[in-house]
Amino acid sequence: MSILVVGSVALDSVHTPFGSAERVVGGSANFFAAAASLFPRSGVRVVGVVGDDYPMDRLAFLSDRGVDLSGIERAAGESFFWAGRYHYDLNARDTLETRLGVFADFQPRIPEAFRTSEQVFLGNIHPDLQLDVLDQVDDPGLVVCDTMNFWIEGHRASLERLLPRVDVLMVNDSEARQLANEPHLLQAARWIQARGPRWVVIKKGEHGAVLYDEASIFFVPGFPLESIFDPTGAGDSFAGGFLGYLASVGTQDPGELRRAMVYGSATGSFAVEDFSVDRFRSLTPLEIADRVEDFRQMTFFEHDVSMIHG
Amino acid sequence: MSILVVGSVALDSVHTPFGSAERVVGGSANFFAAAASLFPRSGVRVVGVVGDDYPMDRLAFLSDRGVDLSGIERAAGESFFWAGRYHYDLNARDTLETRLGVFADFQPRIPEAFRTSEQVFLGNIHPDLQLDVLDQVDDPGLVVCDTMNFWIEGHRASLERLLPRVDVLMVNDSEARQLANEPHLLQAARWIQARGPRWVVIKKGEHGAVLYDEASIFFVPGFPLESIFDPTGAGDSFAGGFLGYLASVGTQDPGELRRAMVYGSATGSFAVEDFSVDRFRSLTPLEIADRVEDFRQMTFFEHDVSMIHG
Repeated sequence: MSILVVGSVALDSVHTPFGSAERVVGGSANFFAAAASLFPRSGVRVVGVVGDDYPMDRLAFLSDRGVDLSGIERAAGESFFWAGRYHYDLNARDTLETRLGVFADFQPRIPEAFRTSEQVFLGNIHPDLQLDVLDQVDDPGLVVCDTMNFWIEGHRASLERLLPRVDVLMVNDSEARQLANEPHLLQAARWIQARGPRWVVIKKGEHGAVLYDEASIFFVPGFPLESIFDPTGAGDSFAGGFLGYLASVGTQDPGELRRAMVYGSATGSFAVEDFSVDRFRSLTPLEIADRVEDFRQMTFFEHDVSMIHG
Repeated sequence: MSILVVGSVALDSVHTPFGSAERVVGGSANFFAAAASLFPRSGVRVVGVVGDDYPMDRLAFLSDRGVDLSGIERAAGESFFWAGRYHYDLNARDTLETRLGVFADFQPRIPEAFRTSEQVFLGNIHPDLQLDVLDQVDDPGLVVCDTMNFWIEGHRASLERLLPRVDVLMVNDSEARQLANEPHLLQAARWIQARGPRWVVIKKGEHGAVLYDEASIFFVPGFPLESIFDPTGAGDSFAGGFLGYLASVGTQDPGELRRAMVYGSATGSFAVEDFSVDRFRSLTPLEIADRVEDFRQMTFFEHDVSMIHG
């Protein structure tokens, strides 16, 4: 298979109670690609933009793993830079600084060779750019889209044009509630589904993730990590594990979508064990599969309706 | 089997965005008994106190279902009264009024016939009274205990005396964190287990519940109700479903404990569909088992470590 990801290729400075990292590689496209490329046959292709200050050598491990980075444009100027601080509870973070740099004028150009990608991940960028990406590709089999409160507040009309062309909207719980203007998550998911996406994936951080399809709901809990080191990129890593798994198995039947949710959760749980994409430098598919098996054991029970009778 | 429950037998006035109920039957012992008695062979016995204003006829459905209410003492004075208001999000509530009445001087007296109860549920009362209950019963096979922030803050020493005598501590996530003085739930559960309880059940409201035993963790999601009518009593109804199920099957092996978690979740999810214990007046064991099956379908996936290889 082949997966096209379009998103940010950034430098992050991250401060946590456990340590700090300065100007390390980050951004949605990097986390997604590092996660998805762990899956055999995922065929990841990246489109993004960096400035002339970007340490491309820090992404060499992706090329070594077969990720095609030729769609990362190098522009004159500074790379997208984000600095943030996490506190002990790690659920909230303060943004200390954001400098968009060359990302401010990002106009995704999809290389000819990428236009037949079978899956597309639209990282969290302006919905007009997400639409523009879809205009440049040939009928992909699966389009997965992220967005955020900023676009929901300021560019709702663009988002509503985008939704009919999206197969999986993948957002967090507050974004889903805000988009649907509906506090009840199930009803928010149904509102979104009525506007196009066949599937809605809602990420709830430590509380796990939920997949809504036409007829059913599937829950994955948050993985009970002994410690969380750096939460940056967990959501994009979830998306990378989700699509990487689906590309690896080559189908998207209901059972595979459920497993993709768990592979996404497992992959995202590894992302937070180190700074930047560093955990993905050494992570193996077998470690991910073992954690998926942990998820299975944490949720499995047998049931027979007759159990309380007789 | 037989289950002794000791807790509050109260009158509640509840205001929600969907309606109001005035001076309806409530309290931990009532919700627990109404839930547990839905399970065949649960043998529920209630110990509590009411004033001379209590509408015992509103509990007749419990007696009809085999609940022994003879341990509810009738004292001169007013019954425990609580009034509260829920808002649209239903996660937070404002207490409008609390009048302890005869509950202020409650000294549980366990009738002779109740002392051999095989299971004990210690509802949320002063930990010294919970200890006093345990001093009055013969070595029960399973002791499940609830508590709250008020006792954790003011009576920690009593709680720490109680914990070694408890098999299952059943609290919500903020109570577990506060008791262990530890923000990380897994570590909070391990802290509690080191002080006695073999099992810790942490209730997370809409985010479900978690069972920690010595070696494993089991997650149940929150049931995605289309609407929540009145959240009062959901936690005690969870406990009633949990113990009622275990009493019904008569064992507590690891598979049964997992199913008890799901039966508890299912039972708790019904509690919120109506005011007071009213949903339990008509609920049937088969409806609960059907909802448990819904939970199974919402969490089930197959997995084979070889899936992403080959």
